[in-house]
Amino acid sequence: MNDNELRALIKQIVEEETQPGIPIGVSNHHIHLSEEDFETLFPGQKMTKFKNLRQPADFASNSKVTVVGPKGEIPGVRVLGPYRKQSQVELSLTDGFQIGVNLPVRMSGNLDGAPSVTLKTDAAEITVAGAIAAKRHVHMSLEDAKKYGVKLGDNIAVEVTNGKRRLVFNDVVARPREDFVLEMHIDTDEANAAGLSKDSIARIISDNN
Amino acid sequence: MNDNELRALIKQIVEEETQPGIPIGVSNHHIHLSEEDFETLFPGQKMTKFKNLRQPADFASNSKVTVVGPKGEIPGVRVLGPYRKQSQVELSLTDGFQIGVNLPVRMSGNLDGAPSVTLKTDAAEITVAGAIAAKRHVHMSLEDAKKYGVKLGDNIAVEVTNGKRRLVFNDVVARPREDFVLEMHIDTDEANAAGLSKDSIARIISDNN
Repeated sequence: MNDNELRALIKQIVEEETQPGIPIGVSNHHIHLSEEDFETLFPGQKMTKFKNLRQPADFASNSKVTVVGPKGEIPGVRVLGPYRKQSQVELSLTDGFQIGVNLPVRMSGNLDGAPSVTLKTDAAEITVAGAIAAKRHVHMSLEDAKKYGVKLGDNIAVEVTNGKRRLVFNDVVARPREDFVLEMHIDTDEANAAGLSKDSIARIISDNN
Repeated sequence: MNDNELRALIKQIVEEETQPGIPIGVSNHHIHLSEEDFETLFPGQKMTKFKNLRQPADFASNSKVTVVGPKGEIPGVRVLGPYRKQSQVELSLTDGFQIGVNLPVRMSGNLDGAPSVTLKTDAAEITVAGAIAAKRHVHMSLEDAKKYGVKLGDNIAVEVTNGKRRLVFNDVVARPREDFVLEMHIDTDEANAAGLSKDSIARIISDNN
């Protein structure tokens, strides 16, 4: 390693070690609905906001459904807004085992191989295709993407320290978009594997693989 | 980096990359019981073997209990044998949220700060202290420990590749013992965060932290 390479390595390590932590958003199981499916499940109702989410385009609605699979059901699964073109159910793999569906790990919107599940309310019952386990990802602004040297779809590695369990998530997808703010989304299984606490710090590191 | 250092680094990488995978055992929630607690929960019965486990000293029994917490219960939690001095409940953090207990991440046998839970059978109901989330660990023979250059209690890093989700578990405890065979134990949350499949490969890597 020559002097310039050593300098570049040290600079990279300093950048990694001194970057502020990336906020971590833990996604509990939730569903996105098309306007048509919402109207079937909640006839005569409109989707109303329960609270804002960190990503400005999204919100948690006041509506909840029961998700039913071959081996069980999960009550009280919250509907997120706004409407999507296609209804989509996002569960943890733990949820999947519980209700008996084999979930592929997919980015939101990609329902390749996603099994069908039933959604149930007091008013109606519909089958949607399909259910996925969300692939972990980091929402970021275009400026963040420039800073981290990544582009849409890149796989990055994120180290999570200071919680109850330290680990490195590989295969985290970079999702820069003009209206996104910096936030890593993981599901409850992933949060638990990292022993997530309020002290946890997530940082992008070099992926040596 | 001089020639000898470079040679040592390359040798280390070759060793890491060519080592056979470590078998992964996923621990579903389970309990260990003292003989006294077993006799209270299953009066007049003896603990009988359902099946052997990979570690020769342990076995799955035919007995199951319901674990009850402040917010819910988990039926059908299997009792592992043989008897322990102290009863102990091992749950995933997902289970903990479900029944409303805040589980510390602990090595088996260390119940510091472990909350009490109730165990219920058709015959009886007892309270035990306590319930933990198991700290991930690698069982290994004394020869394995020598090969990996680790000793009892060392924290090691294990990379899991080839599954649905690639990651590196840090803070994996090395547990060499004469009668142990090589096997990493993780819980269901951790298995799901790694998207574990039959193709998954676990390998000990250098922990750079």
